[in-house]
Amino acid sequence: MSDILELLENGSFSSLQAELRELNPVDLAHELEQMDRTKMMMLFRLMPKDQAAAVFSYLDSSLHQHIVETISAVEVRELIDAMFIDDAVDLLEELPSNMVRAIINNSSPETRRIINHFLKYPENSAGSLMTVEFVGLFETMTCREALALIRKSGVDKETIYTCYATDASRHLTGAVSLRSILLSPDDCTITQIMNSTVIYVHTSEDQEEVARKFKEYDLLAMPVVDNENRIVGIITIDDIVDVIEAENTEDIELMAALHPSESEYLKTSVWRLARNRILWLLVMMISATFTGSIIGHYEALLQNAVVLAIFIPMLMDTGGNCGSQASTLIIRGMAVGDIRLQDWSRVLLKELGVATLVAFALSLVNLLRITIFTGAGFRVDLVVTITLFITIIFAKLIGCCLPLFAKLCKFDPALMASPLITTVVDAFALIIYFSLASLMLP
Amino acid sequence: MSDILELLENGSFSSLQAELRELNPVDLAHELEQMDRTKMMMLFRLMPKDQAAAVFSYLDSSLHQHIVETISAVEVRELIDAMFIDDAVDLLEELPSNMVRAIINNSSPETRRIINHFLKYPENSAGSLMTVEFVGLFETMTCREALALIRKSGVDKETIYTCYATDASRHLTGAVSLRSILLSPDDCTITQIMNSTVIYVHTSEDQEEVARKFKEYDLLAMPVVDNENRIVGIITIDDIVDVIEAENTEDIELMAALHPSESEYLKTSVWRLARNRILWLLVMMISATFTGSIIGHYEALLQNAVVLAIFIPMLMDTGGNCGSQASTLIIRGMAVGDIRLQDWSRVLLKELGVATLVAFALSLVNLLRITIFTGAGFRVDLVVTITLFITIIFAKLIGCCLPLFAKLCKFDPALMASPLITTVVDAFALIIYFSLASLMLP
Repeated sequence: MSDILELLENGSFSSLQAELRELNPVDLAHELEQMDRTKMMMLFRLMPKDQAAAVFSYLDSSLHQHIVETISAVEVRELIDAMFIDDAVDLLEELPSNMVRAIINNSSPETRRIINHFLKYPENSAGSLMTVEFVGLFETMTCREALALIRKSGVDKETIYTCYATDASRHLTGAVSLRSILLSPDDCTITQIMNSTVIYVHTSEDQEEVARKFKEYDLLAMPVVDNENRIVGIITIDDIVDVIEAENTEDIELMAALHPSESEYLKTSVWRLARNRILWLLVMMISATFTGSIIGHYEALLQNAVVLAIFIPMLMDTGGNCGSQASTLIIRGMAVGDIRLQDWSRVLLKELGVATLVAFALSLVNLLRITIFTGAGFRVDLVVTITLFITIIFAKLIGCCLPLFAKLCKFDPALMASPLITTVVDAFALIIYFSLASLMLP
Repeated sequence: MSDILELLENGSFSSLQAELRELNPVDLAHELEQMDRTKMMMLFRLMPKDQAAAVFSYLDSSLHQHIVETISAVEVRELIDAMFIDDAVDLLEELPSNMVRAIINNSSPETRRIINHFLKYPENSAGSLMTVEFVGLFETMTCREALALIRKSGVDKETIYTCYATDASRHLTGAVSLRSILLSPDDCTITQIMNSTVIYVHTSEDQEEVARKFKEYDLLAMPVVDNENRIVGIITIDDIVDVIEAENTEDIELMAALHPSESEYLKTSVWRLARNRILWLLVMMISATFTGSIIGHYEALLQNAVVLAIFIPMLMDTGGNCGSQASTLIIRGMAVGDIRLQDWSRVLLKELGVATLVAFALSLVNLLRITIFTGAGFRVDLVVTITLFITIIFAKLIGCCLPLFAKLCKFDPALMASPLITTVVDAFALIIYFSLASLMLP
């Protein structure tokens, strides 16, 4: 890679161009990001148009604005026209709006029409993910005709490996892989070899649902249709891999009581990171106050048996951990589609079984430990052990019920993860603990 | 779908076969799983061989054993030969070993050789994910020759869309997409159109690393080479999507202190679910005991100011939540490749900034709330507020340091998530709290 900078400094532009053509656009984008901006712009301009467009779509978004501002209007137009439409739309969604207007006015009428169309779809919908660059075949074509069409038009298409068949009015009627076209006799018609049970989505469908279908059916591409069942675009697997990772990140962040953010950690400002965290922390701090007021209610009891305070952290932590284990498994099971709402009774029975086993094991270990090492007296030991047992059962059950309940109410189940459950379980554990203590201690 | 059962009962086998051929193997597998086993076996035998192999690979693993035991040795051989090699290997890895031996002895010598070879690779390595069914071209071929070879041999190949070029001794020298072959002039050689900077992996590489490369370079397939750089197989994106989901599930489970399990929740026995949870719960219960013993150490102080106990839940919960927010962001950032070990100083500075902002906001709200609503006296309020401030700073810093430290020691950073951090932060918060109280209260 150091070759490139050397060639640039020596002014050997033709060998430089040959070298640039050979490199993978992802690696090249990484390199450009490290350079100073003058050198970066020189290299960017030396690349062949297609290579430049590919590299551009992998560059960090902070550089997009710089490049668009630096190059001429004609160059912007060439760049946008050479990019895949879905990448171009992503770019426009991140630039300031005055720049977007300038770019749209500068691009070719055809590209402009398509981009305008795309910008209408809501974010995270199938429409916003799709590209219009697919191969559409009429079902009456022969394989020979189809192959000729693909060879003629394929250069501009994001994927040519799955083609879609339509009737005369562009209603989706089937899918056919390039593989079948290649491997079938030349005069076979598309109708004969196409698969007429195509998996497709509507433009308005949520990207999470689109990703689910890709995973379930092991697809490489999926057609997107409008309300009249006419094909308007396709979604390709490379964009779905990004969607899957983004949805996972969102779930993980929600589960840790973070306001989900789409930007990279190191590129997010301290101010924004703090803002994403403070609201939930405040909510949970206030709710933990209620837990505290339970202790306040039993202040007299605690005054008489201050040893009870020693076991508060153990009861709170174990309850919280038991609850978050259960909720995590249920939330994840629902996210990957293993658990559906109608499975609630099986989940409940299963967690009841697990809770009983876990509660027995932990209570026993705890009883042995505190009778041997802590001199709190048999009655206190018994109160602690019974509380632990009941808390574990409660924590496991609430841990599996809350995510299911959230799903029923059409909330994201990931909201019902550890932090919320910990707060609920804490309060429950302390009420049981002090009630038992008032009853059983002299 | 009810048609199928009707056709089966009426004995209209030829229309049934036509109907079966049309259905998507994924949907068909779902249907078969719902039927009684006699009907399922009848339908399974009526399917064309390729369809049966595809449906089989989507069936639930509990049915695999049943089918293999029910059908004849010849049928097993036909089934295994029709399956993609990587699916066949997955099947063999899940069946009991005496059955595996019977199957391997029954399959064709070529299949047997390949399967035996595959079973040698460690689980979760690139070797165990790959398939040998790829198109290998010699770099000296012309596009016309290459296309003829693909059309002749493509039927057996898992993907024909990316082909790999080798020299005479099968060393990997480049990759060429079917698209370029189709769109280039017929007498162009492969060397002229191939991309010679291929992204590849070694057979022993971990699947997580393989998935990272797929995501980074937006690949559909990737070649796998042996130690002499000879191509031995390819990995396709559909298997990688499953790997990404499995790795995410593993991270999420580890982060909730669960022993990761590869089986679906509803199909895992209560016994096993309990076993996956108990060890970590025991470890954390014992560590929470140390937190309790801190309270024990200050028993006399608590006896004099039992009001201090009221704030214990709030301090513990807020500290834990702050720590788990930070650790979650860092763990996830490292998992998706946004944060590397060498970024530690930037992470630390960023968290220090966030922690300060969050600590100020929360302490202020808390001070107002307790002075207005709790009559604990100004000195206690001050002790609580200062403890909260220090605990938040500590929690955020330990929350970002522990995952980085785990990475440095080559542990999975996901181990350092909420439950562990909660325990550490709890102990810290209580020490600060009681030390301050001893100093500042009369």
